[in-house]
Order: sequence, then C-alpha cells, then structure tokens
Amino acid sequence: MKNEKDKKETLGKVGEFGFIEKIRTAMKAKNPNVVLGIGDDAAIFKPAKGHELIFTTDMLVEGRHFDFKWISPWQLGAKTMAVNVSDCAAMGAKPTAAVVSLGVPKDYPVANLEAFYDGLKSWGEQYGAQVVGGDTVGSDKFVVNVALVGEVETGRALRRSGAKAGDALFVTGTLGDSAGGLHSLLHPSEKGKETASLLVKRHLTPVPRFNTGRVLSSKKLASSAIDISDGLSSEAHHLCGESGVGAEIHEEALPISPSLAHYCGERGLDPLDFALNGGEDYELLFTVPLPRISEAVQKLPAETGVAVKSIGRMVPKSKGIALITRKGERKPLAAKGFDHFKGQL
Amino acid sequence: MKNEKDKKETLGKVGEFGFIEKIRTAMKAKNPNVVLGIGDDAAIFKPAKGHELIFTTDMLVEGRHFDFKWISPWQLGAKTMAVNVSDCAAMGAKPTAAVVSLGVPKDYPVANLEAFYDGLKSWGEQYGAQVVGGDTVGSDKFVVNVALVGEVETGRALRRSGAKAGDALFVTGTLGDSAGGLHSLLHPSEKGKETASLLVKRHLTPVPRFNTGRVLSSKKLASSAIDISDGLSSEAHHLCGESGVGAEIHEEALPISPSLAHYCGERGLDPLDFALNGGEDYELLFTVPLPRISEAVQKLPAETGVAVKSIGRMVPKSKGIALITRKGERKPLAAKGFDHFKGQL
Repeated sequence: MKNEKDKKETLGKVGEFGFIEKIRTAMKAKNPNVVLGIGDDAAIFKPAKGHELIFTTDMLVEGRHFDFKWISPWQLGAKTMAVNVSDCAAMGAKPTAAVVSLGVPKDYPVANLEAFYDGLKSWGEQYGAQVVGGDTVGSDKFVVNVALVGEVETGRALRRSGAKAGDALFVTGTLGDSAGGLHSLLHPSEKGKETASLLVKRHLTPVPRFNTGRVLSSKKLASSAIDISDGLSSEAHHLCGESGVGAEIHEEALPISPSLAHYCGERGLDPLDFALNGGEDYELLFTVPLPRISEAVQKLPAETGVAVKSIGRMVPKSKGIALITRKGERKPLAAKGFDHFKGQL
Repeated sequence: MKNEKDKKETLGKVGEFGFIEKIRTAMKAKNPNVVLGIGDDAAIFKPAKGHELIFTTDMLVEGRHFDFKWISPWQLGAKTMAVNVSDCAAMGAKPTAAVVSLGVPKDYPVANLEAFYDGLKSWGEQYGAQVVGGDTVGSDKFVVNVALVGEVETGRALRRSGAKAGDALFVTGTLGDSAGGLHSLLHPSEKGKETASLLVKRHLTPVPRFNTGRVLSSKKLASSAIDISDGLSSEAHHLCGESGVGAEIHEEALPISPSLAHYCGERGLDPLDFALNGGEDYELLFTVPLPRISEAVQKLPAETGVAVKSIGRMVPKSKGIALITRKGERKPLAAKGFDHFKGQL
C-alpha cells in the first residue's frame, strides 16, 4: 500500500527523468525478442525469421476519448493497449513491442501514472507486447499515444482488401455493447443498473480478438479483416471500399447481447442503431470464402473461445452496401460510425 | 496554388476519413521494404536480413514544444520527423517506417495539415523513413506523435551504456544554437537580426546527425552514443549513468558557433550556459576508445560532412562528472538541461 508521502508525489516533483527511472524498473524486459528496453535513445528488438512486421498507432485524448470521471488510470492503460492490440489482431499478427508517449499535466499524481503503466503492461503482456520505450512530456490535458509493432508469418497478414463477391461476412462477439455502456455513462439512471454495468465494462475495458485474428491468418481462413472501432456500418464501408466489392448485411443476423437488448428495451432505444453505428466494439469483421465457411463456423469458436456469426455476404460493387431488414427490404447502409471531426454519434 | 475554396477547407468539413484519403495519396509507398502503407488496420514491412530493429517515439505538444506564431506547419512536420530520426541516428540505425498520430482542433485548415505532412514526408524521405500509417483525432491543442522503426546491423547499435574510463568524449557540430534561437524568439530585438535568424533556423529545423551515427555504428568507431535533446549537461549525465563512468568536459573545447558567440556578446549573455544547458541541439554526444581517436578525428568529418570535436574524456565513476574551466579549475557539472516537468530552462 502507498503511504501518504507517495500519494502526494506529482510528476512536477519527481521530474521527467525520475519518473522514467520508476517506469523502467516496472517495465523490465521479458520478451526474448527484445534486445534492449527502456532507457536508451531507442529500443532494440529482433525480427522473427519468416515473418513480416506490422506497425500501428492510436492516440487517446482526455475529454474526447475518455473522461477520468469514468475511467481509472489503470483501465485507461489497459484500454490504450487493447485498442492497439485490436489493430494488430485485425492483421492476424502477434504483438511484439510497444512505445508509449504521454502528455501529462504537471500536477498529475505519480501513483496514478504508475497505475496507468501497470494497466498498459498487464494488458500488453497477455498478448506478448512489451513496453520498450516512450516519451513523457508536459500537457494541459492527458493525452496518450501507443505505437505497436507485431509480427505475422510472411504473406499471411489479413488485409482489408482481400474480400471477393460471394464471400461470407462474419463478426466476432456482440455489437453495440460499448456504445450502450457509453450511453449509460452519459445518461445515468436507476433503471437496470446491473445490465448497464456490464455494458460499461465493455466500453472501459474492451478485449481485443487476438486469438481469432491469429487463427484466421495462420489457417488462411479469412480473405479480409478489419476491427470495428468506429461502428459496423463505417467499417463495412472501409472493407468494401478497399476490396472493391459491395455487401449485404442481414439485420436479423446481427449479434446483440441480452444486456444491450434489455438496456435498450427499458429505455425505448433501438439496439439496431447501437449495433450498426456504435463505436469501440473492437470486434473483428472478416470475410470467409465459401468453401471455408463450415470450418469457420464449427472450429473457430472452439479454438478461440470467442463466438463468431455470419451476418451477410459480399456482393459485386455495383450492388452497393445494403442492410436487409427483418421484413426483407433492401436499404442502403450509410456509414454512420464515429468520425472524430464530424462527430455524428 | 490552392484556390480560395481549398483554403477554407477545415478538418471538421472533410472529416477524418476524407482527410486520411488525402494523406494516403500524398504518402504513396516508395521504400521497397514497405509491403503495405496507409489504409489498413496496420502497415506491413519486411525486416532486412542480418539486422536488428530499433523503435523510438517522440511527442510534441502545442504551447510546450512549439508555437504556431513561430513555426510553420511544414517546419513542424520536418522537425517532428527530425527529432525521431535523431534518436535513430544516436543508435547508429537507418530509419525504415514511421506512424504519425495527430490531435487536431476541428477548425484547423486542411491546407495546413497537408503542409505538415509534406514537411514530415520530405524529411523522412531524406533518411529513408516512410510514413506508413497513423491516427487522426480531435483535440483542443495541436499534438503530434511520431513513432519510428529503423534497422541496424545486428549487434552494432550504439548504446548509451558502452563508454569506458579512458574513452574520449566527442560531440558533433556546435552546441547551444537552438537554445539561442529560442531565446531570440522569446526576446525579440533589433540587434543582430541576421545572426539571430541563423540560430532560429537551427531551433525550428534541426538536422539529425544521421550520417555520423551510421559511420559510428557500421565502423564500430564509438563505444557509446546519445543525442543531445535536453542539453549537453543532462545528456552527459545520462551517458555516464548508463555506462557507470564519470566524465571531464573541457570548457574551452566546447564548440560554440560564431553566430551564438556574437548573439550572446551583443546581449551580455554567457554562451557557455547555452552550450551546456540549452535544449534541442540534436547533435550527437559519443565516446571513442583511445586507439580509434585519430580515425574519428581525421575520417569522420570527411565521410559525413559534419564536424566533430573532442570535448573531454571519460573517467572512473568515483571522479564524478566535472567541467574543467578555462582557468583549469575542476567544477562538478550539474544536469541543468530541460526537464518537461521541472522546466529549469
């Protein structure tokens, strides 16, 4: 347990270099491919033979992506790592090394920063990602950036561009829970608190679909994949755009959790809107060629522990991107997911 | 030339995805090791045989690291890339791929962002670094993060930890110019404007010592190296701390440019303080074992086009880190360089 003196330590008091020393000890190297971790001008790591590297980054800004009223520093660390690992999973790759940049107010308590790094580290280690370096600077608002390198067997990365007309469209887990959780944080109510708290958990500590991504790439099951960070409708447009195809998505097939259905039912909300346009699901959206569908349906959940559901199929580009309603009507599906500068949600 | 319509385009109007499309076209792939650039969940690149990878990151925050009163968006792009390449140079590595995260106000003009990316790209390409991905998010203040991966022949990376007592201590270029430039921006004056503008240029568009780093690593000339981002005194402490040695630095040997000497002379300032404690020089500080000194002195400037100067030597740790004054006095050298949370400068 921290004593009173420790609780009052701020970044302004220990300074950048004092803080780096603390983090360096806490982040000690474990990954055998990491040759040199925190403490030099750059980290050093070894690429694995027969592999290509993937490289991704995500930035989270206080007041835009998170609010410390709701999320703890530990959860924020875990989530920042999770969203990067989710990109890595969408490529079918294994994370290797991460660098972390933090913009932090001077009076920010060091104990909270240590909790942040602990969340980052715990979630990174689950997936093999080691924090090997970073940058810590002053900022009025808390801003964090993680850049992640991962590796994938040469030629096996899951791109957005490989879908063909005729492929089945799949999604992992359930859709819209995170947006439901955000809704409940923004509209606190006494109704169905327990249900809401399940949704909030999915919003604050998303779980990247790492195992699914790995099986999809290593067994060449998927022809394309993307992670759902901005909502299904937006991601379907990205996938179709990159692949040069259209899609038909069946409303009745969309996986909606009992929690979200219950939450929406109590409040007169439409769960479909959350499932189609809610952000931060971090589920995988992927396509499977017809001959492999039964394999995907039968083996994938057993191997990965994560449910998958076929929600539609890819069609020629000329047919556009459509939602097939429960009544069988065909409606164009607009990309209404979250855009950081247009902010539709 | 941009027309009026283009000038009025803001990020809020084109949106995140509209902007990504613009950047994707502007950043088209050239590096043969980059398999897949901007536009997927992550970029893909091939590691070179017989090489290890280095990984570094730097964050720059508006109002802390830069002010748009002084720096143009193009220059900011160039500088953000330069400070990352400088870390890479301090490892003796070649840059390969960069990811760029931007936090940008909604009303920020798209034309300025394109200029920023153009600066980033131009400076990256000089050193072989290709922008392969990124993240663009909303933020009240402009904040930019670059993460850079580079490669270096296995086992040849220049660490901070290799210096031995007896090694000579070298520095590239001249010291304190960037801090002089910052001083002149903060204290505008009619005196010696031309001199000041040379210093300002070093502050706004620093040149990373890439060639020097490459020769030092590939020819095994240096036993350790670090780049000077927070001031010579601080970096000397880092190098000594990691290597477990002390150092003697000779005041009269410190390379001070005629511009800085003139600027300080006219204003009654001490150039020594700028040279020792000024930040953002992005020169390299490195150590050379005695048998290699003549080689370093004679060949390095000719091969790299950058001057190097021996400024002292490494001594046993027990002797501490000292400045030998012009009068021959031995004074402990305190680490007074820039600390983002203590902010001594």
